[in-house]
Amino acid sequence: MSAEQDKGAAPHGMQPEDTPELRALYKGFEEESLLPLWTQRADLMPPHPSPKAVPHVWKWSKLLPLAEKSGELVPVGRGGERRAIGLANPGLGGNAYVSPTMWAAIQYLGPNETAPEHRHSQNAFRFVVEGEGVWTVVNGDPVRMSRGDLLLTPGWHFHGHQNVTDKPMAWIDGLDIPFSQQNDVGFFEFGPEKVSDSSTPEFSRSERLWCHPGLRPLSRLKATPSSPIGAYRWDYTDRALSEQLKLEDEGYDVMVEPGHAAIRYVNPTTGGDVMSTIRTEFHRLREGSESAPRREVGSSVFQVFDGEGSVLLNGTEHKLETGDMFVVPSWIQWSLRAETRFDLFRFSDAPIMERLNFARTELDGTVLDD
Amino acid sequence: MSAEQDKGAAPHGMQPEDTPELRALYKGFEEESLLPLWTQRADLMPPHPSPKAVPHVWKWSKLLPLAEKSGELVPVGRGGERRAIGLANPGLGGNAYVSPTMWAAIQYLGPNETAPEHRHSQNAFRFVVEGEGVWTVVNGDPVRMSRGDLLLTPGWHFHGHQNVTDKPMAWIDGLDIPFSQQNDVGFFEFGPEKVSDSSTPEFSRSERLWCHPGLRPLSRLKATPSSPIGAYRWDYTDRALSEQLKLEDEGYDVMVEPGHAAIRYVNPTTGGDVMSTIRTEFHRLREGSESAPRREVGSSVFQVFDGEGSVLLNGTEHKLETGDMFVVPSWIQWSLRAETRFDLFRFSDAPIMERLNFARTELDGTVLDD
Amino acid sequence: MSAEQDKGAAPHGMQPEDTPELRALYKGFEEESLLPLWTQRADLMPPHPSPKAVPHVWKWSKLLPLAEKSGELVPVGRGGERRAIGLANPGLGGNAYVSPTMWAAIQYLGPNETAPEHRHSQNAFRFVVEGEGVWTVVNGDPVRMSRGDLLLTPGWHFHGHQNVTDKPMAWIDGLDIPFSQQNDVGFFEFGPEKVSDSSTPEFSRSERLWCHPGLRPLSRLKATPSSPIGAYRWDYTDRALSEQLKLEDEGYDVMVEPGHAAIRYVNPTTGGDVMSTIRTEFHRLREGSESAPRREVGSSVFQVFDGEGSVLLNGTEHKLETGDMFVVPSWIQWSLRAETRFDLFRFSDAPIMERLNFARTELDGTVLDD
Amino acid sequence: MSAEQDKGAAPHGMQPEDTPELRALYKGFEEESLLPLWTQRADLMPPHPSPKAVPHVWKWSKLLPLAEKSGELVPVGRGGERRAIGLANPGLGGNAYVSPTMWAAIQYLGPNETAPEHRHSQNAFRFVVEGEGVWTVVNGDPVRMSRGDLLLTPGWHFHGHQNVTDKPMAWIDGLDIPFSQQNDVGFFEFGPEKVSDSSTPEFSRSERLWCHPGLRPLSRLKATPSSPIGAYRWDYTDRALSEQLKLEDEGYDVMVEPGHAAIRYVNPTTGGDVMSTIRTEFHRLREGSESAPRREVGSSVFQVFDGEGSVLLNGTEHKLETGDMFVVPSWIQWSLRAETRFDLFRFSDAPIMERLNFARTELDGTVLDD
Repeated sequence: MSAEQDKGAAPHGMQPEDTPELRALYKGFEEESLLPLWTQRADLMPPHPSPKAVPHVWKWSKLLPLAEKSGELVPVGRGGERRAIGLANPGLGGNAYVSPTMWAAIQYLGPNETAPEHRHSQNAFRFVVEGEGVWTVVNGDPVRMSRGDLLLTPGWHFHGHQNVTDKPMAWIDGLDIPFSQQNDVGFFEFGPEKVSDSSTPEFSRSERLWCHPGLRPLSRLKATPSSPIGAYRWDYTDRALSEQLKLEDEGYDVMVEPGHAAIRYVNPTTGGDVMSTIRTEFHRLREGSESAPRREVGSSVFQVFDGEGSVLLNGTEHKLETGDMFVVPSWIQWSLRAETRFDLFRFSDAPIMERLNFARTELDGTVLDD
Repeated sequence: MSAEQDKGAAPHGMQPEDTPELRALYKGFEEESLLPLWTQRADLMPPHPSPKAVPHVWKWSKLLPLAEKSGELVPVGRGGERRAIGLANPGLGGNAYVSPTMWAAIQYLGPNETAPEHRHSQNAFRFVVEGEGVWTVVNGDPVRMSRGDLLLTPGWHFHGHQNVTDKPMAWIDGLDIPFSQQNDVGFFEFGPEKVSDSSTPEFSRSERLWCHPGLRPLSRLKATPSSPIGAYRWDYTDRALSEQLKLEDEGYDVMVEPGHAAIRYVNPTTGGDVMSTIRTEFHRLREGSESAPRREVGSSVFQVFDGEGSVLLNGTEHKLETGDMFVVPSWIQWSLRAETRFDLFRFSDAPIMERLNFARTELDGTVLDD
Repeated sequence: MSAEQDKGAAPHGMQPEDTPELRALYKGFEEESLLPLWTQRADLMPPHPSPKAVPHVWKWSKLLPLAEKSGELVPVGRGGERRAIGLANPGLGGNAYVSPTMWAAIQYLGPNETAPEHRHSQNAFRFVVEGEGVWTVVNGDPVRMSRGDLLLTPGWHFHGHQNVTDKPMAWIDGLDIPFSQQNDVGFFEFGPEKVSDSSTPEFSRSERLWCHPGLRPLSRLKATPSSPIGAYRWDYTDRALSEQLKLEDEGYDVMVEPGHAAIRYVNPTTGGDVMSTIRTEFHRLREGSESAPRREVGSSVFQVFDGEGSVLLNGTEHKLETGDMFVVPSWIQWSLRAETRFDLFRFSDAPIMERLNFARTELDGTVLDD
Repeated sequence: MSAEQDKGAAPHGMQPEDTPELRALYKGFEEESLLPLWTQRADLMPPHPSPKAVPHVWKWSKLLPLAEKSGELVPVGRGGERRAIGLANPGLGGNAYVSPTMWAAIQYLGPNETAPEHRHSQNAFRFVVEGEGVWTVVNGDPVRMSRGDLLLTPGWHFHGHQNVTDKPMAWIDGLDIPFSQQNDVGFFEFGPEKVSDSSTPEFSRSERLWCHPGLRPLSRLKATPSSPIGAYRWDYTDRALSEQLKLEDEGYDVMVEPGHAAIRYVNPTTGGDVMSTIRTEFHRLREGSESAPRREVGSSVFQVFDGEGSVLLNGTEHKLETGDMFVVPSWIQWSLRAETRFDLFRFSDAPIMERLNFARTELDGTVLDD
């Protein structure tokens, strides 16, 4: 595909001569709330995605202390709702958008604090890189949060967070807030100030009902737009990745690419993404391995879960360690390098791109047909 | 549903005291490209969609003369590509966006002019409210443009426009440019300066292959993401609406609501929307009838095709006549009133809302379950 | 694929020695309603489909006189319900099954006769090779029957037939009766003795609502398991086929194979088959053309609509003229030869095969991947 | 629904008078391979499913000794392929069909015996009610068989069985052989006489890749028509059912009906049935509970896995204990009674009925809308 070849055409080739008549015309446009295409076509329709969002890395060593300090200075409660600090992409003009579609934040809950219940159209998840002691209550079902777990709070599910210990806890939140705000889709409703169920079971009811591989409760046969699983536990994720590595050792072709194991978290009622706007995955690279350079339509956020390595973002290498986060805007080339065994959580807006038929991938410089 | 009841909570209830320490914290955020949620939660997550886009009416009596004047002053050609004048929603800060997702424009082609071929990821259509004489060439297939016709140029199809007469012609374009720009999904490629097939057949090959009701070529059995039909002709639309009215006269329940006939243009390979981001419909109200007040998540644009009447937008009535266009942003209440038989073309971003599970409708004040 | 190579294994290689003990064992099986696999494996699981049904041709010149004679001797009415004469495949042991899944019959209605209303789970259609004057009333909607029309009466729709003229009329019926009987899925209910609406409109309400290409009533947005179209008119079918031939003449690749135009009748709410068990198609071969030899899993029935030619069924040529019908059982090789322009209606059980993942096709001796 | 009310019509009301002319007509029919509808309509189209198959119970105490005796007398090997003894429904005329669609058998493999590899279009599974020591090798992947496990060998997957111990083992097989034979869809191919991989791992590669709840290998993103899971282990099934019972004890509505826990085995790539023609489920009733009387279109087979109880089949009670099997033909009323905790495995042809739009259920005498 030669989409990127602009064939030398002047991007604004058909610009008319600047005359008083033209100025009168343009003034007429302005008065009637109109804007011509010919003065802005090249900006509106670039040869390939040209995101304002920039590739960027946030260091956990900076994020966590700021979150801790917020814990000292900022109360959590009704109105603000959450002590969450959003990653603001430097290219996106002072909005707390990590990309045009996605929100990513570090959330911090002090000892015995509660973040009140609410619900919203926006889809949300939590991923835990360290710590424990908080239960998220989703539609009345308390879900334990522990290292390596992915928790879902799909759109319009009530949820609050309760720290039952005398230690603080931090985790990351991912939501489709920018997409929702940009496209005017969001509803929001307050719930109780305290969580509706303060018990602290090891496993949520959703897990007890749904987390049996290949089995589905006969009382729950309808496909749901979001996964009914409240928490995807680290044990399962770790085991799935370990088995892929062992199977590769045994000679079987089960990996995304050599040395690179990966799983996608899915909705067991469909086999598809966990929520309608957010894809979540976990990647494990063997020590010394590298992933092939890729470009994708849509944006992704990664958090290093374990190990050391780096990411190349449009040719620039960034060193990474546990907790570090980075964003890959649309059509930015990225690849991973593992110095040790290297574990990364990833989320993206890929379901939006696929459902709306905009997905496209370039691998090693070649655009893949889908 | 009480989504709109804000229950009196202070929107920023958890604001911390303004101290030097807090200022230092906020400075730390800024240095690390972070933004707290608690200072902006109410803006990011309003109780219901609170669009910046405003309801607005553009009068054809203003649009057409400006387009004609552009025809005199502005050449059409490579670079600018099209003599198209975009409707710029007054709430959207000087962008040529009719809504956060959609672009709407009046396009004007002078006698014997050609708008060169190109292709882009953005989905596009044309709708013709008056005039004739232009053929749009879509992937090499020339498609006649006549009053009442809807023409499709789905994403990544080459297309150009050729006026073969000595009279100018104007029509409206609809695209998902704002959505594509906002979400960084767009590719663009120039094609030939002249259209690749300058013949002027009465019917395009796509119509000859596909426009036989309930019949499908055996050589084309795969579902395609966009409709393969190049033009939806006015004759068919008019007949479909007339039959609905006659069937209502005969006592059968075939209408959307009493006195209100409507069709959706569909992809014959799926029965679903013509393109993955844009829904297109045609509505006909009997003289004297009114549609029930509605709110919908997502935005719509209407163009009056024939007759006289008005639209109520959040309670304000706007008189309408042939060619007038208006936009209904997300969750704005709208209803139509017909003084004469009243025909309107409509397009919207509803496929986006439905595929991403954000669709919601309020009819006569009640939110419908879907 | 080497599915047909039996690799020389004795089909019943593991047969045990015939001893008194074995006989006692087999008697034990019988007493306990058991049967061993090892004595019948080769019959139960042949190397490729080995239908009991045989390829067979029924001549219209024989069918029609017998139907006419039935019109003299056999009353039509409640109980028997229809004056229909089923094509009984000679291989299927005296059942009125044209194949293991499908029923095909010639139905005959005398001047001013009525076949009473009933409904059943079985899906049904009518195809008219000659004559006119009868209206089929489907769920209260009278549908005119004319030469070349395909009429649907999907499962559990009430339907009766009324001849409003003083001339008799004959047509063919296709149903999934054998499949339904074999698999015990059928419900049946009597309706009124007279048709529920005796009017004789030119077009049914279903056509007036649905037969506008690419348009869908906004009041009917749910996908339905069967097509809502009561009649697929000959005019449309003929035009669709003619256009394919013209497009081929103009150099475009729109045909199934050179010289062979074809359409599939589809459900406009899905783009898929008209009913869940029956596929219907129409084929037109140019004079002098031949179709490539094919084998398919599942059975088909053809009726010649116009022209002269022949079919090769497993290598044997059968001459055909208007009205002649033939059955192609599963995995029997078939191809068509056209002496004149050659028009054929076809129906089959392909939706069953595809939905249950049994479909397989061999074209020119090669099994196609699907 | 009054489907069962025949409204008193004589089933063959339109029978003509027996005259020489009629006899000549009927002879004409015979000569031309035709059969009239009016003499057989009531049989072809009964008011509700009227299966020839009868409800029947097979006692494990009879089955197992006959299988053991077969082990002594009948060799296993090429040609016969399997030492399997099919349950022959007494109503189905001496065919080894447990129902019109399904095959059920007890299979027996002696110490150190091997059943050779082959593949066929027919879908198959194994369920283990007792014993161990055999590995089924599916497309080269050895799968351990243990009590309570469900193993899949979907259509066209090579498979053989190897007993690596010096003890015999028996299990049950379920296939769609009658459906395949009746509808002529079957292909069959011999593979190696010995299994292609004689290793005996605790878990198959398919399980190691797929059996992590809610997780999907990133290298396997396409939906497959059959489940990729080779074995559904008893541990998971047991735990899923136990959790349902505990959740019911805790007051949550997670059961099919009070006292009745159940899971469906599913294809993790879709959330749907494990194979395109066969549904598999496991049911657990609390001691003393009863299931509501049901009728369903399509046939089911149950095997008692543990506990004691009974089944009512059209009003007749049959006592059941571990290993006993019974068939419920279409539209036969059934309900279960548990004297102890009562565990049953179930398989059925429900996917056929649902995909072809024939499914219908009557619960407690009321037909459910679907």
